[in-house]
Amino acid sequence: MYKAKAYSAASATSPLASDTIARRAPTEHDVQIEILFCGICHSDLHSVRDEWGGTVYPIVPGHEIVGRVTQVGSAVTKYKPGDLAAIGCMVDSDHTCPRCKAGFEQFCQNVIYTYNSPDKYKTAPVTYGGYSDSIVADERFVLRVPDNLELAGVAPLLCAGITTYSPLRHWGVTEGKKVGVVGLGGLGHMGVKFAHAFRAHVVVFTTSPEKTEDALRLGADEVVVSRNADEMQRHAGSFDFILDTVSAKHDINAYLNLLCPDGNITLVGAPEKPLDVAAFSLIMGRRSLSGSNIGGIPETQEMLDFCGKHNITADVEVISIQKVNEAYERLLKSDVKYRFVIDMASFKSQ
Amino acid sequence: MYKAKAYSAASATSPLASDTIARRAPTEHDVQIEILFCGICHSDLHSVRDEWGGTVYPIVPGHEIVGRVTQVGSAVTKYKPGDLAAIGCMVDSDHTCPRCKAGFEQFCQNVIYTYNSPDKYKTAPVTYGGYSDSIVADERFVLRVPDNLELAGVAPLLCAGITTYSPLRHWGVTEGKKVGVVGLGGLGHMGVKFAHAFRAHVVVFTTSPEKTEDALRLGADEVVVSRNADEMQRHAGSFDFILDTVSAKHDINAYLNLLCPDGNITLVGAPEKPLDVAAFSLIMGRRSLSGSNIGGIPETQEMLDFCGKHNITADVEVISIQKVNEAYERLLKSDVKYRFVIDMASFKSQ
Repeated sequence: MYKAKAYSAASATSPLASDTIARRAPTEHDVQIEILFCGICHSDLHSVRDEWGGTVYPIVPGHEIVGRVTQVGSAVTKYKPGDLAAIGCMVDSDHTCPRCKAGFEQFCQNVIYTYNSPDKYKTAPVTYGGYSDSIVADERFVLRVPDNLELAGVAPLLCAGITTYSPLRHWGVTEGKKVGVVGLGGLGHMGVKFAHAFRAHVVVFTTSPEKTEDALRLGADEVVVSRNADEMQRHAGSFDFILDTVSAKHDINAYLNLLCPDGNITLVGAPEKPLDVAAFSLIMGRRSLSGSNIGGIPETQEMLDFCGKHNITADVEVISIQKVNEAYERLLKSDVKYRFVIDMASFKSQ
Repeated sequence: MYKAKAYSAASATSPLASDTIARRAPTEHDVQIEILFCGICHSDLHSVRDEWGGTVYPIVPGHEIVGRVTQVGSAVTKYKPGDLAAIGCMVDSDHTCPRCKAGFEQFCQNVIYTYNSPDKYKTAPVTYGGYSDSIVADERFVLRVPDNLELAGVAPLLCAGITTYSPLRHWGVTEGKKVGVVGLGGLGHMGVKFAHAFRAHVVVFTTSPEKTEDALRLGADEVVVSRNADEMQRHAGSFDFILDTVSAKHDINAYLNLLCPDGNITLVGAPEKPLDVAAFSLIMGRRSLSGSNIGGIPETQEMLDFCGKHNITADVEVISIQKVNEAYERLLKSDVKYRFVIDMASFKSQ
């Protein structure tokens, strides 16, 4: 065991504060990583404030981790000290179930999330995430990072990136498809970048007309102000796929009606209140409404490699770890373009 | 033009009553059919009472039509007088759009339904359905009927049959899959028969424990009383596919939570009120909620051929046309096992 610097919250009402945590010494299959950047995901805020229930305190959030390998266990073959490496939302699974074997570790019933999951090594009651200067994980959950990308912008790929990449791939978004992205935040801006890179015709739906210019810059072909019923009606029955990134309750039928036959809407935002779904909106045209959550390790690696090839990173605002509570308040107001990323070098100035 | 006997409703509050309607003389591509049996679908009742809006009166409902060819146009190649033949929910489409060309006439924007659609031949303001002793339709919308099946039980295959067959096929129900059927009425009992014939493990969900015996007789492997939360919980995360035939509002999340990763629920009943869908139920496990409505002509023929091969028909209660209003009242109370079918021979006793 060794000590690492971290920011943790002591209760649902406590701010995040400087702390020292225990990390296990790397076992033979482990990779130790010096964390350089960690993205701030809205899930971090929900977990810190126990808004989904089940948070064990202290909590060290963070699952958009990128850094450099500092040490590897004797059986590790894929990494060596000095390599760039990343960790996303999962750090372990049972490796034996059909889902793991198929590369869908996110569906494994024994998946270990990067933070707030039982720690099988008993280093701590639960796993501690990436708001820290160091982390240790099984090499099977460590990802290679292309060396041509700006590292701060890579961090959000590990959650916001794979969460949008995976459903776009799963639902067959390619050239010639008409694709909508609802909401232009941390998830939405990645959805636009990927759908554009897949050569789809990309339409951004937003309630904020002032986002038009930025949407076009990110790769949208069109922007529709969703409050304008006439504008919406012009697109009725025409979309192959819509990625819905909105986490507040909204009128999903307005979007279902924009789908062509066999079209799909996938929710990646998670509104707390149920959505009202009109059965007829689904029945006519055999439409479907789905959800999606991150992706498996093989697909996460595929996504990172794709980003390297196409020079895709998240648009980020880099902050020091000392500013994390302030960032949370701004996140609640959607006041960020488009993802906060903590620069862990700031630990050294403590 | 010629005159046919029919039962029509004169207004949303009128009972169905004996009438005489005009049918066109068969054109060169047309097939004239003596209707022997016509099933009663819940849509008929909704349309007669204008519960979905848009009904043009008088209305002659009926889209589960089976009979015998009496005359064919000069260009007709697939049928000759004396052949068994059937007509379902559609009698025409534009034949030129990509959806028609792909065999998905049900998605054609110019589809002509069997009743209450504009009549392009101007024989009447709208098309008239199967509560009649005769009908004329383009041979491309006429279906072949296997000659080994009991004809009264064939009629409901044209709507209840294809409506359940199509989504089971679309979502890949085969041997080794665990399939749920929610509700055991006209649609549900066909869903059970098909899922069983596809060699899936079939679980019927019902609120009525007294339906257990019948469900098992129809082909179910298990019956779950959906009000029993413990019984439901035992099946959590285990279903590949669930066919939901319930047309009243119900708790769809209880069923979404029974799906395994990538599992799908397809709605074929159409609750009037929106369903409350919890986004998390979809997001965890990449589940999806879809709808489906009938099927294309090629798939409807495939379904009839499958029924011939596997000796599948609907379980029906045969009534005279004079009893149709009484049947509607019983339908509202779900007092039928499992589909009413009108025997058109009863026209002759008028």
